[in-house]
Amino acid sequence: MADRESRVRDIGEFDLIRRLTETLPFAVRQSAQVDLGIGDDAAIWSPAPGQSIVITTDALVEGVHFRLDWTDWASLGHKMLAVNLSDIAAMGARPRIATVVLGVTGNELVSDIESLYAGAGALAAAHGVVIAGGDVVRVPHEVTLSVTLLGDVPAGYAMTRAGARPGDLIVVSGTLGASAAGLALLERGADPGVTGPPLIGAHLRPNPRIALGRLLHEHGATAAMDLSDGLLGDLPKILQASGVSAEVDIGSVPILPAIRVHFPDEVERMALRGGEDYEPLLTIPPDLFDELRRRAGEVGATLTAIGRIVAASDEPNLVLLRDGVAVDADEGAFDHFG
Amino acid sequence: MADRESRVRDIGEFDLIRRLTETLPFAVRQSAQVDLGIGDDAAIWSPAPGQSIVITTDALVEGVHFRLDWTDWASLGHKMLAVNLSDIAAMGARPRIATVVLGVTGNELVSDIESLYAGAGALAAAHGVVIAGGDVVRVPHEVTLSVTLLGDVPAGYAMTRAGARPGDLIVVSGTLGASAAGLALLERGADPGVTGPPLIGAHLRPNPRIALGRLLHEHGATAAMDLSDGLLGDLPKILQASGVSAEVDIGSVPILPAIRVHFPDEVERMALRGGEDYEPLLTIPPDLFDELRRRAGEVGATLTAIGRIVAASDEPNLVLLRDGVAVDADEGAFDHFG
Repeated sequence: MADRESRVRDIGEFDLIRRLTETLPFAVRQSAQVDLGIGDDAAIWSPAPGQSIVITTDALVEGVHFRLDWTDWASLGHKMLAVNLSDIAAMGARPRIATVVLGVTGNELVSDIESLYAGAGALAAAHGVVIAGGDVVRVPHEVTLSVTLLGDVPAGYAMTRAGARPGDLIVVSGTLGASAAGLALLERGADPGVTGPPLIGAHLRPNPRIALGRLLHEHGATAAMDLSDGLLGDLPKILQASGVSAEVDIGSVPILPAIRVHFPDEVERMALRGGEDYEPLLTIPPDLFDELRRRAGEVGATLTAIGRIVAASDEPNLVLLRDGVAVDADEGAFDHFG
Repeated sequence: MADRESRVRDIGEFDLIRRLTETLPFAVRQSAQVDLGIGDDAAIWSPAPGQSIVITTDALVEGVHFRLDWTDWASLGHKMLAVNLSDIAAMGARPRIATVVLGVTGNELVSDIESLYAGAGALAAAHGVVIAGGDVVRVPHEVTLSVTLLGDVPAGYAMTRAGARPGDLIVVSGTLGASAAGLALLERGADPGVTGPPLIGAHLRPNPRIALGRLLHEHGATAAMDLSDGLLGDLPKILQASGVSAEVDIGSVPILPAIRVHFPDEVERMALRGGEDYEPLLTIPPDLFDELRRRAGEVGATLTAIGRIVAASDEPNLVLLRDGVAVDADEGAFDHFG
């Protein structure tokens, strides 16, 4: 319990968010029009019957989320939009309109900032998103990029973290850990000019799964979220929101062979805790999985079942199984203040 | 003209925004659903017939927009929401839902960040706004607060900068320069605990004119915008968007007597160029002004006509009159990089 002298770093990001939520008057946390507020990947607002608007916002800060000697500006522009598109994708919505708060010191080359926008613009064009302005502010030190992205979805079709039921399969798309491995390669001094797939590319230019996201509701997924804090950081959020437990088979987690080549001793850590995967994590009844997997394949997404939802005996709990035997799992998510 | 070696500070904020806009593919700048994108106080999105959604985003950066020794945290929370509410007000929309990107170093007292949210929450509650989450990120140095605010308005009712016509009166609400004078008092070492009206209070806790904004369309205003960069910085944006010129009578500009007391030599500069007034600047046909002024009075806003719109002979032009005689006007807005 934090006292009056506690500092933000003492309590961490997740406890801070909880406390700030409690600070707000009840009417400021939710309303008849706001179906989902603080705590999911995005908020859901229904200004008119039949349609919901999904709102997400994510920021990238120089020195915390990126380094300018490890990324080119166009990739940074791609990523600042992609991390928000990924949230919209996991909600099952269609991305529509974005605003950008561009915090720059003034010392940047204009041509670099133009490359940033060109990178964001190319990804926006690919997904039919309009970049509709925002704010340019001076910052004393670090380049800071905040994007807010709005999408729309028919009322009742948005995927949330609540809804996973005992018996559901736990499913991820793509592979896990590639972004963490790419970051580790950059930390080792790998050439950031090599931004192609699979590892450094996954870190610098994540590929948001918009088309997959839009299949989820129709094909019976019960819960979904965007994997940004690592499987062991994020899955507990679905368990908490749904009031269920989970068993995950480590051996089923899809991992690129390149990670085993470069980081043979860190494969599991990167895949389970690496973060920044930006792949949807979802739950779905087993009898519906094959059809979703087939449709996902048509839009270029590979789905893998990695475990199943079980009833919570007491508190929601995550059990990791290696060759069928439970292993110790520290469920802590990546915490920027930890 | 900027070349490849130009830096952001060489070209300034407004030219940067223009260049970034041109960098985006055309389809990313506008669409059938987006009525107004980059360049106004807010974007207008019409996801369904009959209703428009207004989107604005503004950031406050420590050391640039505020100093923690000059503000209490609750006032800062108030202001981070108020500057966005003011944009929504000038569009004539009803504010609905906000997201916050909270950038903190980790060294802040949790109780201070709670005060920040309490300040924002109280203002949100007063205007029926839901704070629906956002993102908490670590920043290496300066506290950075980015708010995105959405409002709604019946289709066709949103006020924009385009629409001022020759013969219209130019009108402001409240008074101008108080925020700039409050900031100057803080720079002189005034006690930041004195956050009440009129001067320091105007700087630390601006009062967004939501109720006034919602009267504008109905009562025939032709253009409106939020005064944040000072009258001489902002009025040219209406002139440019509307393709008209203006004559402003300096003697008509409403100015608090307290400014003349504290800053007798800087009254005009503060009132005309001070910035952060957060009052609507609007244009309206003369025969409709009295009724709007009466209705504005009912919601606590005082309106003053300060000039008139005239036809542009060539380029849009702003003429300042002192006792009926034109004086030299430098139209430059406050530029964070200038």
